[in-house]
Amino acid sequence: MATQRILDFLATRRPSGPCLVVDLDVVQENYRAFEKALPDARIFYAVKANPAPEILRLLAGMGSSFDTASVAEIEMALDAGATPDRISFGNTIKKERDIARAHDLGIRLYAVDCVEEVEKIARAAPGARVFCRVLTDGEGAEWPLSRKFGCAPAMAVDVLRRAAALGLDAYGVSFHVGSQQTDLTAWDRALADAAGVFGKLAAEGIVLKLVNMGGGFPTRYLSDVPAAQAYGQAIFEALSKHFGNRLPETIIEPGRGMVGNAGVIKSEVVLISKKADNDNVRWVYLDIGKFGGLAETMDEAIRYPIVTPRDGDAVEPCVLAGPTCDSADVMYEKKPYPLPLSLTIGDEVLIEGTGAYTTTYSAVAFNGFEPLRSYVI
Amino acid sequence: MATQRILDFLATRRPSGPCLVVDLDVVQENYRAFEKALPDARIFYAVKANPAPEILRLLAGMGSSFDTASVAEIEMALDAGATPDRISFGNTIKKERDIARAHDLGIRLYAVDCVEEVEKIARAAPGARVFCRVLTDGEGAEWPLSRKFGCAPAMAVDVLRRAAALGLDAYGVSFHVGSQQTDLTAWDRALADAAGVFGKLAAEGIVLKLVNMGGGFPTRYLSDVPAAQAYGQAIFEALSKHFGNRLPETIIEPGRGMVGNAGVIKSEVVLISKKADNDNVRWVYLDIGKFGGLAETMDEAIRYPIVTPRDGDAVEPCVLAGPTCDSADVMYEKKPYPLPLSLTIGDEVLIEGTGAYTTTYSAVAFNGFEPLRSYVI
Repeated sequence: MATQRILDFLATRRPSGPCLVVDLDVVQENYRAFEKALPDARIFYAVKANPAPEILRLLAGMGSSFDTASVAEIEMALDAGATPDRISFGNTIKKERDIARAHDLGIRLYAVDCVEEVEKIARAAPGARVFCRVLTDGEGAEWPLSRKFGCAPAMAVDVLRRAAALGLDAYGVSFHVGSQQTDLTAWDRALADAAGVFGKLAAEGIVLKLVNMGGGFPTRYLSDVPAAQAYGQAIFEALSKHFGNRLPETIIEPGRGMVGNAGVIKSEVVLISKKADNDNVRWVYLDIGKFGGLAETMDEAIRYPIVTPRDGDAVEPCVLAGPTCDSADVMYEKKPYPLPLSLTIGDEVLIEGTGAYTTTYSAVAFNGFEPLRSYVI
Repeated sequence: MATQRILDFLATRRPSGPCLVVDLDVVQENYRAFEKALPDARIFYAVKANPAPEILRLLAGMGSSFDTASVAEIEMALDAGATPDRISFGNTIKKERDIARAHDLGIRLYAVDCVEEVEKIARAAPGARVFCRVLTDGEGAEWPLSRKFGCAPAMAVDVLRRAAALGLDAYGVSFHVGSQQTDLTAWDRALADAAGVFGKLAAEGIVLKLVNMGGGFPTRYLSDVPAAQAYGQAIFEALSKHFGNRLPETIIEPGRGMVGNAGVIKSEVVLISKKADNDNVRWVYLDIGKFGGLAETMDEAIRYPIVTPRDGDAVEPCVLAGPTCDSADVMYEKKPYPLPLSLTIGDEVLIEGTGAYTTTYSAVAFNGFEPLRSYVI
């Protein structure tokens, strides 16, 4: 996944220290693949995945809309050239003063998952469109979403009814099947729930218009994933099955799927050692770890492909750890990572598929280490 | 643990957004308590716990030495007024060019835990003093240290022998019993191992001088912890038991124990909701979470005391979560946290015992949220 442009950049510029390099050509290809796979859905790029201004400007220019998590992200999307009607405030947890600020900036589309949030929006952004997030089971996702966001479908009916009563535009339903979702039937189950909410409210005269299908579109890590086209087909079939010929407006919110495979982290082997003479597992310490941007290795959830200059030599499993004095800063230990026996201190390695959820996760100064630098080319 | 000075500061300044407030008077008291409890040990403050310049200047002025994890931390300690002989490079994972830089800055004391690191130091900091970290079992610690740092005691003998052969000053042994260690016998077990390494090398004519007992001194969270005095007594007894009347030089490296109870995070309740009508657990969302500074709630390891303006009212358990669109941003879920039923959106809460390992852990811009602000008073 390290493109020739990324390899050339690293060979020419020789940046010192760990850094992420993102190839905009890959982002562009990903955007076109989503457009082609789901031609009727509007694409709201999840800014939180990677808010680099170059990425936002590219996508704004291609016609993308933007899913934002905070006022700062709204401002970044506006700065990149998106108009307010192409921006949603997609975080279900918002301070009322932040809703008011978003309203002042022209934002009219908000996520909710409870009556309490609806009431804030009715006060701070009167007349806005709201969509209610419903809980899904997240089965099949590598980074499951727990119950933090969304409410039971039955409760979503109450939430949207309350929105209508308070003068808001009860606009639709959203769900998120879980990040890196590879089970195509997950969308079918979630769309069945969404159609149920549409039906119940229609019976009361409240006509929903939108299904926001969230993100979850996987990027390629170590195992193959169904391509965007297959997702598109599965989703289109599920929409037809549950909504018949009254298809709703649809939104997708790719984040990892848009930028994950566009980025590569360059890192350096700082130390290779054993803990005892009879130890059969090497410890390999890199100059980046869980607090320098690889937060998603938490619980060894995501296993990034790693390219070394010794690939092809015999391999043996290693514990892979970061450079800080924090014992939790270990990426792969329960399931050690096979790396060449010839790997040497000072070798540069490439951690692929790291364009999403790395730079912004990086700790501000933990152990005195700088946050992850990023180059967008 | 919110001192009157902290409460007055918050009442007067009314800072907006989440922030940490650290009371230097408490840091001063903690330093004096360590001096009193272990009068013969040199105190090396673990800069990574909280590198605020005001804290470093206070401690430098009181005579503290500094345990650093990176060149940036070495420079901060120097800027605060510490001379190079009062600074150790305590990270066992160092790039050779960082060792060279530290050597240029005058640093002469380095941690190692393998022969490979010794060889780097011999090249980049010839003649330096090294101490070898040995593995301890970390039993009894709330934040156990895994096997990331240190080597088996038998291997430490080889490592220090190699250091001496390469012209380094094989100076001693270090260990770390685990953070928040409340089992006083943990020091006894580790000191027995250290004495074993001293003995084996003495038989070869290599005379070690230093035992670095690391950190692990707890700060007061939700349960009472033995006071510094009790630690001092237990450690002194274990030293006498294992080293007899040839007591080594000793170092301690308190981090959390120096600043943990000196800081309080002010946060705001952003949302309180349920996921379904028949749900019996409320979700309480704060404007700070795992990525905003509370990283040590990972695996619900550390349970901070939380003060609300409704304390005294009836309580019920809540799931406590942060404000980001990340489902992993949940602090307490497996063991819900009891909070007043009357708690209301907009209430300010104080999260106590948060002076250590919060500001620097904070994500640089995750979801567009600013890193944790900090005021040192």
